[in-house]
Amino acid sequence: MSLIVQKYGGSSVADVKKIKRVARRIKKTVKEGNRVVVVVSAPGDTTDRLLESAYQISAHPSEREVDMLLATGEQISISLLTMALHSLGCPAISFTGPQVRILTDAAHTRARIISIDTKRIEEELKKGRVVVVAGFQGISQEEDITTLGRGGSDTTAVALAVSLKADSCEIYTDVEGVYTTDPGIVPSAKRLKEISYDEMLELSSLGAKVIQLRSVELAKRYNVRLHVRSSLSNKEGTMITEKGLEAPEVCGVTYDKNQAKITIQSVPDRPGIASAIFTEIAKRNINVDMIIQSASLKGLTDVSFTIVEADLEKALPAIKEVAKRIEAKGVAASKGVAKVSIVGVGMRSHPGVAARMFSCLAKEGINIEMISTSEIKISCAIDEKYTQKAVKALHRGFRLGMNDKSTDSER
Amino acid sequence: MSLIVQKYGGSSVADVKKIKRVARRIKKTVKEGNRVVVVVSAPGDTTDRLLESAYQISAHPSEREVDMLLATGEQISISLLTMALHSLGCPAISFTGPQVRILTDAAHTRARIISIDTKRIEEELKKGRVVVVAGFQGISQEEDITTLGRGGSDTTAVALAVSLKADSCEIYTDVEGVYTTDPGIVPSAKRLKEISYDEMLELSSLGAKVIQLRSVELAKRYNVRLHVRSSLSNKEGTMITEKGLEAPEVCGVTYDKNQAKITIQSVPDRPGIASAIFTEIAKRNINVDMIIQSASLKGLTDVSFTIVEADLEKALPAIKEVAKRIEAKGVAASKGVAKVSIVGVGMRSHPGVAARMFSCLAKEGINIEMISTSEIKISCAIDEKYTQKAVKALHRGFRLGMNDKSTDSER
Repeated sequence: MSLIVQKYGGSSVADVKKIKRVARRIKKTVKEGNRVVVVVSAPGDTTDRLLESAYQISAHPSEREVDMLLATGEQISISLLTMALHSLGCPAISFTGPQVRILTDAAHTRARIISIDTKRIEEELKKGRVVVVAGFQGISQEEDITTLGRGGSDTTAVALAVSLKADSCEIYTDVEGVYTTDPGIVPSAKRLKEISYDEMLELSSLGAKVIQLRSVELAKRYNVRLHVRSSLSNKEGTMITEKGLEAPEVCGVTYDKNQAKITIQSVPDRPGIASAIFTEIAKRNINVDMIIQSASLKGLTDVSFTIVEADLEKALPAIKEVAKRIEAKGVAASKGVAKVSIVGVGMRSHPGVAARMFSCLAKEGINIEMISTSEIKISCAIDEKYTQKAVKALHRGFRLGMNDKSTDSER
Repeated sequence: MSLIVQKYGGSSVADVKKIKRVARRIKKTVKEGNRVVVVVSAPGDTTDRLLESAYQISAHPSEREVDMLLATGEQISISLLTMALHSLGCPAISFTGPQVRILTDAAHTRARIISIDTKRIEEELKKGRVVVVAGFQGISQEEDITTLGRGGSDTTAVALAVSLKADSCEIYTDVEGVYTTDPGIVPSAKRLKEISYDEMLELSSLGAKVIQLRSVELAKRYNVRLHVRSSLSNKEGTMITEKGLEAPEVCGVTYDKNQAKITIQSVPDRPGIASAIFTEIAKRNINVDMIIQSASLKGLTDVSFTIVEADLEKALPAIKEVAKRIEAKGVAASKGVAKVSIVGVGMRSHPGVAARMFSCLAKEGINIEMISTSEIKISCAIDEKYTQKAVKALHRGFRLGMNDKSTDSER
């Protein structure tokens, strides 16, 4: 008898009809001889609506009270889903995060799980009940209600799978799995049957639509097999797991638009410079993505980095100030930058992947403005208007599409 | 420094504008040098909407899950109200029923409070914070979320006032207090400055629009002064308290429409007969209101009683069956009955109140079908179509109106 943790996102429980469909799927899993723990998110746009009322009352609502407010969304889901299971004759019981002692730190709206007391869940499973747990929420040592941040229900599901030593953790969503790239850009994009934790993490924007990346980190640490599936179909989905040796060099192409590129020119190359620059930016709570420092020439270097375009206005005064202080020659900034990336654990053992990427882009006449590499990811900053062209070229160039196996990657 | 418990009903926190108004009133109370504990209900029609979703999923939703669902309503109110207090610069913190350990029995949807742990509340009051507590909800010994039944927030407020030894308990609602009768029928109906617990309980339907009667019982037992006020005005409201000796004979006129009258005719007058009849009706979960047994004549008696009209179809077969079993002669039932009542602790010491009531009705040509009396209440069942006429006549007859003091009660 296997123990399965299933997580259903907000879109899967958005209305009564969908809740009933989820209940039927859970019942089917039980009928197949499994014990099931279910984690649910708030229905549809409930969280957004609640936040809206909060901001109508206060421009800066207290984070403790925001958590108090938002936690109601999942509580609605668990009770309605449990009623739906009952009406199918399936024994079930609901619990809030605090009720099963999902103990977190006190960082309201972005709390981290410390431990879960599985006693009550295990008792109810023994009675043959499906246990329906509210995702996204927990309780602090001070007995205050906390939430885990957007997408936190995925983390709840993985944390429960770890604590209960579940046999698998299924993440149900409204897409059918993880694709080689955005099917909106490349219609031949293929669903991946399997992907490694690291690849999933590096796929960032592509992956984030499917599962919260923080929960993938957690799954990786405790080696929990994550199965991403659609709640609307019975298709196989994508398994996120520790991958075998014979991984393909590249598993997917991902991109981020609306980036801005900033270059601090002719920076005196001495210790502490990078720290000075990025501490100043961090103070303004701005995320920096790619960072490149060119090789030093005559004791001077250029430091370039990308940020989200919307942060540029906020970041620029601070950057100019720090540039002056460190005696840099100047600051150049440009909007309309995109980052395209290829990801794959296989690239570690396949030399020449980077070269192939650059040549794919060159053949399309796309200029590469910045390059950044990790062990399993290569990213290029390019002019935003070439994003689609670049993604298509790379997807074809690395033969990732459904009909690309027999196709020459060269045109 | 006084400690005041204030309770605001759902209509007082129905939208953002109203929540802000309530926050201003609370802040004013704090500015006046009081410590304040606030109890709130779910906003507007939230509870009804939640129940509706439950019944869309299941015709008989589990009561435990209904409680889980409904408890979200008050949790929304407490967080939004606390945010509104913060934005006025008023320190405040919210708590759910379970968080302040409002311990109840396990009778879901109609739980009774066993005890309240006031430790956390007192700590927060000491810090100078307004403590905002979710009404209507508690937690069972099994750590399940429970609710206290409709209007349960009033009970939460009184129970908190008792546990915290508060100086007063203010119930804010959308009416300005308790009136001598329904102002919709008698425009000169007067707001009562003061009313006793017992009178309030006997005013039943009139009082139930203002405050949950169960909370009045609790207030009576622990001698908590209840102050019923409007959240929309600064008027004085009505004080519910242990009344002084010089109470007027009658304080109000109340009525219930849509009643049905049932008479079991010529019942053999022997012990156990009444029990047989009313046990049978109770089994069908039907509330009986007035019960009258006529004096026995030749070993036979008539037993009459009233029930809510809507219950008649359900009750009649059971009554006919029991009538047959006890060898009664027959059963007569009629719809369209109303009950009009006068209430007042003063009537205990004023003889002739009943006679005056009957004469008021007689002068209007209204036939009295049944009479029932308690120590402080006299009720008459009459033809429903005369309800307004009867209420007006009694209100005038006992000089209850604003301009009736100097008026002759006779026409």
